[in-house]
Amino acid sequence: MKHFILASTSTLFGETYLAYLQPAMKVLYEGIDEIIFIPYARPGGISHDDYTSRAAEVFAAIGIKVRGLHTFDDPGAAIAGANGFFTGGGNTFLLVKQLHEKGLMNILGEAVKAGAVYMGCSAGSNIGGVSMQNTNDMPIVYPPSFATMGLIPFNLNPHYLDPIEGSQHMGETRETRIKEYHTQNTTPVLGLREGSWIYARGKQLTLEGTLSARIFEAGKEAYELPAGSSLTFLQ
Amino acid sequence: MKHFILASTSTLFGETYLAYLQPAMKVLYEGIDEIIFIPYARPGGISHDDYTSRAAEVFAAIGIKVRGLHTFDDPGAAIAGANGFFTGGGNTFLLVKQLHEKGLMNILGEAVKAGAVYMGCSAGSNIGGVSMQNTNDMPIVYPPSFATMGLIPFNLNPHYLDPIEGSQHMGETRETRIKEYHTQNTTPVLGLREGSWIYARGKQLTLEGTLSARIFEAGKEAYELPAGSSLTFLQ
Repeated sequence: MKHFILASTSTLFGETYLAYLQPAMKVLYEGIDEIIFIPYARPGGISHDDYTSRAAEVFAAIGIKVRGLHTFDDPGAAIAGANGFFTGGGNTFLLVKQLHEKGLMNILGEAVKAGAVYMGCSAGSNIGGVSMQNTNDMPIVYPPSFATMGLIPFNLNPHYLDPIEGSQHMGETRETRIKEYHTQNTTPVLGLREGSWIYARGKQLTLEGTLSARIFEAGKEAYELPAGSSLTFLQ
Repeated sequence: MKHFILASTSTLFGETYLAYLQPAMKVLYEGIDEIIFIPYARPGGISHDDYTSRAAEVFAAIGIKVRGLHTFDDPGAAIAGANGFFTGGGNTFLLVKQLHEKGLMNILGEAVKAGAVYMGCSAGSNIGGVSMQNTNDMPIVYPPSFATMGLIPFNLNPHYLDPIEGSQHMGETRETRIKEYHTQNTTPVLGLREGSWIYARGKQLTLEGTLSARIFEAGKEAYELPAGSSLTFLQ
């Protein structure tokens, strides 16, 4: 049974790391006592060890041991044998490059599709989509492919931002960027606001949190979908 | 003699297309009566023809004829024979993919290095750097390479934005993104604010406009460089 969370952000303004997700994490990781942390996105260039420690501290509070994927001699075998994962945010290009170059993207995707529990935040959620092509990140490295795990049949735009009223900045709005994506592609895109997450359990797929999400489908006007909605229609 | 402009944006808030650049354009394109427009970045998904018309209208006002690169049977030969170019903004991934796939990136770079006049705005400026790796754009397509023309020995971050004071959004600031770039690369990055441009004439390379630029060099604190400064030290 597929069981995963794809969250817009790890941290809400003024809160501690993963605080708002703790109730959902307790349900997701129920019965699991050890997970693998995937630290490759390296926010702010933090080391793999330091990033893993940061995650381990939060998971320790709910009784779960964390080991960084970078510490295994055979990370592919480690993934195939694990019951649960958490992929932290950071730079999506860096994360995707590492997973592809190490041959781990498909192994991870297959493990999650086979029932291993998964949680991603930000960049870690981007890799749950069909491709990373709706990331907000800067292309600081060149990945061998933009394809990602395809846990869901659409793409995510985490940290979704509405156009800022009265802004005099001439850079493209998020909505404009996603519309440009649809001049070249047909995969739907879900703009996931900070504080929202997607929750999959078996055949169920829902929008969680208190905020609506903005849905972009090729050839249609963008629209709002309320919190609590099923997302199984989106493909 | 190298002679080019790389501008942060085509348009300032409340102004018409290219209005603030007109005095600089008159100097840059002096004595040239026809240029090639490179429309591949397609802002908002606009067609190549429509985008070319938009540029042609502005250039007509200074007595210059414009032809879109997409209208030539042999665009490589057209580039090699042209006296001047203008590359409009839009999506940098789309622009770079087209130029590489058509084998035109190096031909264009060689033509400009050999003395053909060039102006780029936003995405069109990004391709003047060593690579497109400091673009703000969404990776809506997968280019065969992130390498660009290297007219300057550093990269540009157009539409540079200072951190927004009091913002509760948890996405990375522009400065954080560029610092993450420097955990993986050593090429300097110039954060070019809207209203600023870089001007090259022979061995001279200067920061134009009224605003300072933010300079990011690997292993150094970021700092401000005043308008009018020479940029020849940056490599």
